[in-house]
Amino acid sequence: MPLSQVGEDALVRLFGGARRGTAAGRGSTVVVGPGDDAAAVRPPRGSRLLLTTDLLAEGVHFRRTWAPPADLGWKLAAVNVSDIAAMGGRPLWALLSLALPPNLEAGFAAGLRRGLVAATRRFDFAIIGGDTCASGAGVFLSLTLVGVARARLLTRDGASPGDLIFVTGHLGASSLGLAALERYGTGSCPGPLRACVRRHLRPEPRLAFGAALARTGLATAAMDVSDGLSRDLGRLCASSGVGAEVSADAVPIQAATIRAARLLGCGAREAALHGGEEYELLFTAKPRDAGPVAALGRRWGLPLSIIGRVASRGAGVSLIDAGGVRHPFATKTWEHF
Amino acid sequence: MPLSQVGEDALVRLFGGARRGTAAGRGSTVVVGPGDDAAAVRPPRGSRLLLTTDLLAEGVHFRRTWAPPADLGWKLAAVNVSDIAAMGGRPLWALLSLALPPNLEAGFAAGLRRGLVAATRRFDFAIIGGDTCASGAGVFLSLTLVGVARARLLTRDGASPGDLIFVTGHLGASSLGLAALERYGTGSCPGPLRACVRRHLRPEPRLAFGAALARTGLATAAMDVSDGLSRDLGRLCASSGVGAEVSADAVPIQAATIRAARLLGCGAREAALHGGEEYELLFTAKPRDAGPVAALGRRWGLPLSIIGRVASRGAGVSLIDAGGVRHPFATKTWEHF
Repeated sequence: MPLSQVGEDALVRLFGGARRGTAAGRGSTVVVGPGDDAAAVRPPRGSRLLLTTDLLAEGVHFRRTWAPPADLGWKLAAVNVSDIAAMGGRPLWALLSLALPPNLEAGFAAGLRRGLVAATRRFDFAIIGGDTCASGAGVFLSLTLVGVARARLLTRDGASPGDLIFVTGHLGASSLGLAALERYGTGSCPGPLRACVRRHLRPEPRLAFGAALARTGLATAAMDVSDGLSRDLGRLCASSGVGAEVSADAVPIQAATIRAARLLGCGAREAALHGGEEYELLFTAKPRDAGPVAALGRRWGLPLSIIGRVASRGAGVSLIDAGGVRHPFATKTWEHF
Repeated sequence: MPLSQVGEDALVRLFGGARRGTAAGRGSTVVVGPGDDAAAVRPPRGSRLLLTTDLLAEGVHFRRTWAPPADLGWKLAAVNVSDIAAMGGRPLWALLSLALPPNLEAGFAAGLRRGLVAATRRFDFAIIGGDTCASGAGVFLSLTLVGVARARLLTRDGASPGDLIFVTGHLGASSLGLAALERYGTGSCPGPLRACVRRHLRPEPRLAFGAALARTGLATAAMDVSDGLSRDLGRLCASSGVGAEVSADAVPIQAATIRAARLLGCGAREAALHGGEEYELLFTAKPRDAGPVAALGRRWGLPLSIIGRVASRGAGVSLIDAGGVRHPFATKTWEHF
């Protein structure tokens, strides 16, 4: 059944969300849930709040031919949760905006909801409102997420020359997953590419590790890798007023990612250096804290790599290749406009 | 110059918004403004927050041929401010999401910003973050607004049989303004239609009156008229579990609206009963409070009309026409899907 037969009010009810009195995390309450002019919430006492919004647009961020709606719902939540993770906070409440073509099958909306609900359970937040309208041209999804900050915030602007540059997990798989989806679709993707595809469709924000990092105060600056290491490191450096030096060899790439790149005829290192939508955390810390940082990674079962060192602003942001040659670490990532 | 030559980072900077340390209204602070993974804010001590989001989609809510970008920026803010007004609160912070075609002129973004900034000054809130992406298909604008609630919330669910039904200002002008824009565009619109056009493009949310209504505790239920009186009254009644009886003659219509309807060959009463995007407040109060409510309207210089009375749920929602005949007050308004 197309959405045009479902009707707007029924669609709003489908995404209903949290009821009045729902506790979203510890110490906060939903006073008025969806269905009024605005939602009303009581934040945890004395807290600072984090606010972020990310949108997913058909034809720009995904194609309906290869993106299952449940994965879209998950990803819409996960990319916003990753922003809260990168500030060291935890998510509380979300508002959902949907612009959907009237001829879209109702099953699409149901799938979207399923993926979103799975994410609300996993990351412990509540959908408390939103807006829905018809779209003459493709699916637009937008989520605003409100979180609560810890005593210490992770920001982008605290890195100093000499700090070490860390990245969680591994890089490159997501953009290769996108390449695989564009070539093969979801159904007929060769086995060795599936891990990359899953990484692209179902990213795992580093929420627990971000929170631990904020608690310990070990990071001097932090952000998530959403637009590619080259572009995002450039932003962190600009915010902090510093330069950086990255060793290409030190950037973590899984063996499976290298095999997938070979199958696709792409460069795994190119993907790791420039590919977006990884949702790993990129952060800096003092060299004297390298031990405690490594211990934190082990405690959370998350591989950490030291990929380089913060330099003075005048030194710029550079990449040392396998042969020891220095290049400007220029962005080759997606430019929306 | 098209946006494709402006670049994403420059576009984000254009909508920059509030800096760190900005006070947005009394008692709240922006701790981290735009440019980090998320914004961080300190809400007023002990407050409850209001959260709302509304989107404007090209081809659905507006056409670029007749909607000047500055008016779009204003309206995007105003429709969200109206939701905060309808809860009796005041706005604090906003997040802006834009999906824009790359071939759009940069002047469009500058105009949009101008209208938004005018609204942030008028309604005293700060833009603290957002997201921007390319759109393959038209302009999509989404704003999330966070406000602070007063001690008493205005909700939709407190109306009881016997309560009087009030509406602020007058109805019908906005939908006639839309009809005029569709027929004549913005430039060549006949003089008598211009007030309706302005009402459609630059709605005035009833923020001060909503706050006063919440302070006094006179309203038993309240909401804003965004989708048309028939549909919105139906929603208020459903939330409160009541019916209602509205006198068609009592619905406030300005003389200028009647003249505009005549020029357009439309029914002014139809427009007032069913037309959307009015952003007046619809509220209920006890008959014994009719005097204090009228005094409140006079104090804020806002005309108030008693358009009917709340009935039992079983009585349904009905409209008494000029001849005294009762009809079901069914919605004839816009259905998105």
